[in-house]
Amino acid sequence: TTYKIAAIPGDGIGVDITDAAEQVLQKLAAVVGTFSFEFTTFDWSSKKFLERGWYMPDDGMQQLAKHDAIYFGAVGWPNVPDHISLWGLILPIRKHNNQYVNVRPTRILPGTQSPLSQCQLRPQDLDWVIIRENSEGEYAGQGGTTHENSPHTVATEVAIFTRVGIERIMRFAFETAKGRPRKKLTMVTKSNAQRHGMVLWDKVFHEVAKDYEGQVQWDKMLVDAMTVRMVNKPESLDTIVATNLHADILSDLAAALAGSIGIAPSSNLDPTRKFPSMFEPIHGSAPDIAGQGIANPVGAFWSAAEMVRWLGDGKLDKVADDLMQAIENVTSDPETRTRDMGGKANTTQVTEAVLKQIEVV
Amino acid sequence: TTYKIAAIPGDGIGVDITDAAEQVLQKLAAVVGTFSFEFTTFDWSSKKFLERGWYMPDDGMQQLAKHDAIYFGAVGWPNVPDHISLWGLILPIRKHNNQYVNVRPTRILPGTQSPLSQCQLRPQDLDWVIIRENSEGEYAGQGGTTHENSPHTVATEVAIFTRVGIERIMRFAFETAKGRPRKKLTMVTKSNAQRHGMVLWDKVFHEVAKDYEGQVQWDKMLVDAMTVRMVNKPESLDTIVATNLHADILSDLAAALAGSIGIAPSSNLDPTRKFPSMFEPIHGSAPDIAGQGIANPVGAFWSAAEMVRWLGDGKLDKVADDLMQAIENVTSDPETRTRDMGGKANTTQVTEAVLKQIEVV
Ligand SMILES: CC(C)[C@H](C(=O)O)[C@@H](O)C(=O)O
Ligand SMILES: CC(C)[C@H](C(=O)O)[C@@H](O)C(=O)O
Repeated sequence: TTYKIAAIPGDGIGVDITDAAEQVLQKLAAVVGTFSFEFTTFDWSSKKFLERGWYMPDDGMQQLAKHDAIYFGAVGWPNVPDHISLWGLILPIRKHNNQYVNVRPTRILPGTQSPLSQCQLRPQDLDWVIIRENSEGEYAGQGGTTHENSPHTVATEVAIFTRVGIERIMRFAFETAKGRPRKKLTMVTKSNAQRHGMVLWDKVFHEVAKDYEGQVQWDKMLVDAMTVRMVNKPESLDTIVATNLHADILSDLAAALAGSIGIAPSSNLDPTRKFPSMFEPIHGSAPDIAGQGIANPVGAFWSAAEMVRWLGDGKLDKVADDLMQAIENVTSDPETRTRDMGGKANTTQVTEAVLKQIEVV
Repeated sequence: TTYKIAAIPGDGIGVDITDAAEQVLQKLAAVVGTFSFEFTTFDWSSKKFLERGWYMPDDGMQQLAKHDAIYFGAVGWPNVPDHISLWGLILPIRKHNNQYVNVRPTRILPGTQSPLSQCQLRPQDLDWVIIRENSEGEYAGQGGTTHENSPHTVATEVAIFTRVGIERIMRFAFETAKGRPRKKLTMVTKSNAQRHGMVLWDKVFHEVAKDYEGQVQWDKMLVDAMTVRMVNKPESLDTIVATNLHADILSDLAAALAGSIGIAPSSNLDPTRKFPSMFEPIHGSAPDIAGQGIANPVGAFWSAAEMVRWLGDGKLDKVADDLMQAIENVTSDPETRTRDMGGKANTTQVTEAVLKQIEVV
C-alpha cells in the first residue's frame, strides 16, 4: 500500500517539524517494508499569503481530497492577524473535511517532568485522552458586528450546537472510553451559565450514555471546576469529552501539566473516512524560536504515529506502537532531549536519534 | 457609620461560611469601634425554591438596593438543575446591580501549598489578580433552541460584547494594574478563532491601552496558551483581564494552582457605586461536605475583608489589611487549618481562631 500524504508545513517551526516527521515516516515505511508514503508538500503559509493574498487556492480542498491523510505543521505569524491566518487555513480544513473529532492524548513521556509535584512521584497518574468536538460550538464562525466605529458597537459570537453534532462526538467519546483500560468518561459542560446550547449538550450526552450502561463509567464536570480536578486529582481522569473551545483550553492545560506543550499530538478525524483526516502537533508556529532548528519534534512524531494508526485502521497498531516506543526511548535519554525538556539537543539530533531507534525497535 | 449588609447564605456550605463571616465582621467592627454592621439575612436558597417555586421575590432587587453591600454564600444544589438555580439567584443579582467587574485575587497564603513544584519553593511567584468581565460576553443569557426533541435540534449560545462593556472593564483592569507594585497587565483573548466579539475585545483593549502608555506594561495571551503560562511561568503574571467565561475558567485554575479553592475570594463590583456590590468566596455549595461543619471559611473571610475595603472606599484599607493579617496568622498555624489545607480543624475552630486574632492584630 502507498499512502498519499498532503503535507502542509505552514509557518515557523511547523516547517522544521514537518520535515522531521516526514523523515521519520519514510524511515518507518522503509524498515517495515509493507507500505510506503508518498508526500506532496503544499506551500500554504502566512509568508505566501503576504505575497499573494491567499492561503489556499480555490481548488485547495479538491487537492487535499486526493490524499489519504493531511500532515499539518503549524499556522500563525506575527504580521498576519491570527483570525485571518487560522480562518484562511487550519479551520476551513477541519470543517470542510468533516473532521468533527479532535483527539488529544496526554501523558507523561519518559524525560518529561510534570510541574505538578504529585505527578513527579507517579507519572502514571496523568494519562488522559481529550475528545474535542471539532466542527461546531464556539468555532461555528457565526456572529457579527453592528455600529462599528461608534461608541455603541455591539459584536456577537454565536456558538451553534446541533443534536447531530453532539451525538456523534458523544458516541466517539464513549467508544474511546470503552476501548481504554479504565473505561471512564468525564463530560465537561458549562450548562449552569449557558442555558441553551450547553443544555442540549448535556441532554444528548445523557441519551447516548444509556447505550453504554455498565460498559463505561461516566461523570460530569463544569469546565471551571474541571481545571481544579486536572490539577488536584489527575489520577481520577481518563477519557474527557468537551466542546470545541473548552477542549481547546483544557488540552493546552493538559499538555502543560504533563510537562511540555512540545510533545502533545492531535488527530483531526473524519470517522466516516470519506475525507482525509489531519494530524498536527498541538503547539503553534512559535515565532520566538522559529528558524533556529531547536523546536521539539516529539509532538510531531507522536502525531505521525497517530496518523499511521489511523491509516492502518487496525492493521498498523503494532507499527504505531513501535514508533511510540522509539520516540520514548529517545526522550528517555537526557542527551537527546530539546531545551523545553531540559536538554540541549536540537531538532536534527532528536530526529536522528529517532531514526536510529526505528531500526532497533 | 453603620453598614447595612444583605446576607444571602444560599445553599450547602454557603450557610456555614456566611455565618462565620458575619461573626468575624461583627467582631472586627466591635474591636475597631468606628463603624458597625447591620446584617439582614435573606433566605433565598434552593431548599426554599423547592418549597415555593422561586428564589427571589418580585421585589427582591429593591430589597437588596436598601443595603450598602451584599454578602453571598453559595448557590447550587443537586436536585435543582444548575441553570435554574444560578439564573434564579446569583446571575440576575450580578446583572441587575451593574456589577460589571468581578475581581479575583489569587495568592499563596501561609499554610497553603501550591501543587506546582516551583511555587513550593517561592510562594511569592504566584500573586495575581484576575479582572473578570461580569456583565456580558458568554453570560449574556442569549441564545435558544429550535426543533426541540427532533433529530435535527439546533441550539445556540450567543455571546454579546459591547464597546461600552469592554471599555469599562479594560479601564478598570488598567487602573488595577497601575495600582499594583509590578504594574503589569495581561489581556486574554481567543480572537484567533472567534472573529467578531473577540476582535472587538482586542480592538477596544488597544484603544484603552494608549491612555496608559508608560504607566502599565501589558501583553496579550490566547486563553489556551494562558493556562500553559499560568502553570509554567506564574511569576511572569500580575494583573489579568479576561471575558466572563475565560476568567471563570482561569480563576478556578488560579485558585487550584495557589493551593486551595477554599481560600479564594471574589468581589462583584459596581464601580459607579449606584448599586450594592456583592462579595462571595469563589467556591460553590459543596454538597459533598455540606452540613458537616468542616468547610474552609478562609475564602469567606478574605471576601469579607474585600467587602470592608470596598465599603471604606479608601478609608478602611488598614482595617481590611489587619483582617487579612489575622486570617494569615490563623492559616500559618497547622492546628487551625481545615482538611483541604492539610489540617484537622473544623469551621468553628478556624472561625474562633480568627476572632481571637482580630483582638491581637
Ligand atoms: C490555532 C488555533 C485555531 C487552534 C484552535 O484554537 O483550535 C489551536 O489552538 C489548537 O488547539 O489547535
Ligand atoms: C456559579 C456559577 C454561575 C459561577 C460562574 O460561572 O460565574 C461560578 O462558577 C463563579 O465562578 O462565580
